[in-house]
Amino acid sequence: MKKIAVVLSGCGFQDGAEITESVSALIALSEAGADTQCFAPDLNFKSTNHRSGQPGDERNVIEEAARISRGHIQPLSELKEQDFDGVVFPGGFGAALHLSNWAEKGADCSVDENVQALVESFHKASKPIAALCIAPAMISRVLGDHNPSLTIGNDPATAAEIEKTGAQHENCAVDDYITDRMNKLITSPAYMYGDAKPHLVYKGIRGAIREFYEMA
Amino acid sequence: MKKIAVVLSGCGFQDGAEITESVSALIALSEAGADTQCFAPDLNFKSTNHRSGQPGDERNVIEEAARISRGHIQPLSELKEQDFDGVVFPGGFGAALHLSNWAEKGADCSVDENVQALVESFHKASKPIAALCIAPAMISRVLGDHNPSLTIGNDPATAAEIEKTGAQHENCAVDDYITDRMNKLITSPAYMYGDAKPHLVYKGIRGAIREFYEMA
Repeated sequence: MKKIAVVLSGCGFQDGAEITESVSALIALSEAGADTQCFAPDLNFKSTNHRSGQPGDERNVIEEAARISRGHIQPLSELKEQDFDGVVFPGGFGAALHLSNWAEKGADCSVDENVQALVESFHKASKPIAALCIAPAMISRVLGDHNPSLTIGNDPATAAEIEKTGAQHENCAVDDYITDRMNKLITSPAYMYGDAKPHLVYKGIRGAIREFYEMA
Repeated sequence: MKKIAVVLSGCGFQDGAEITESVSALIALSEAGADTQCFAPDLNFKSTNHRSGQPGDERNVIEEAARISRGHIQPLSELKEQDFDGVVFPGGFGAALHLSNWAEKGADCSVDENVQALVESFHKASKPIAALCIAPAMISRVLGDHNPSLTIGNDPATAAEIEKTGAQHENCAVDDYITDRMNKLITSPAYMYGDAKPHLVYKGIRGAIREFYEMA
């Protein structure tokens, strides 16, 4: 049984972790036999009302992420690479808002210091990293110098932005994934295709997680 | 392609729809080829902080449910039986708080007037109803006179409470489901087993939804 860390960025695609992506990853990890622990940053944010799309109330990332993980969650600051065999980053706009400021700055973004340190340490230890949807963008910011191959789907503008970091973008269907064996980086586009069917999102993520778990 | 309504009661197992159950049902419906529409009641409630378990801020059921359905959601009051071939109720404590007051009253509970009317009309029209986790309890309150067979897992106290309505409870493993062909009622226990593994919850729900969709 391998120990896997999952980094959530809230609960809901507009201001947190994409819910179907997070659940798909947790189902696939459970099926693979993983011992999974969820983490999230303990920071406040301005929520988005998912019915109206308008700004909402003030919330806290780890408290919202705990909804997905049924209360079992630890602060991201306590995630230590040496305790885990691999790490998974589901997508959702929270990855571009709370784990980095990619939403505002693109390829010039800053990545949360905990995320930066753990991506570097997992990479250095040759432990696999899985990243879904928009999450590969912030990974490219950290690992760009290692020229990782990754996907965010087929959007030319985002692909061009990612390539400014030194990463190489590959187009990928929603139900598929990309493996960079050299960097042990596995990515799947998921809801970068905004109108994707849930079972195809699940299929792509399940494939990515099976590959990831074999490499862990 | 059959039209299926999914009734959500928020977003999070302590005060809303159980997230893994809701997503599992949506993935399985997508895989089956369903044309799915989510609904939720437009009502305010006192939330529960899922990290601490303590009372939280005031929220709105349909606004929170919209996080699961990526913004595509309609008020429960607009759900008409004649527009759909079947209806699914995921679990989570929201079903016992916002769709009924089962949490407080058990077998003597009142069921939300929209839920009451639509369960009666789907049943009368011989269209299937799928209910997960604790949701079968409120169904038993509506359909008890028809002596439905259903499950909430293997908890004797809840099973005894359900049987006060006239329903018959059957024990069921987390990865399985119960079909009442006479009443076209399909139930799966899911997170009534509180420490269940996500892939077994998914397996039980996927089986239930496949059976449900065939009957629709």
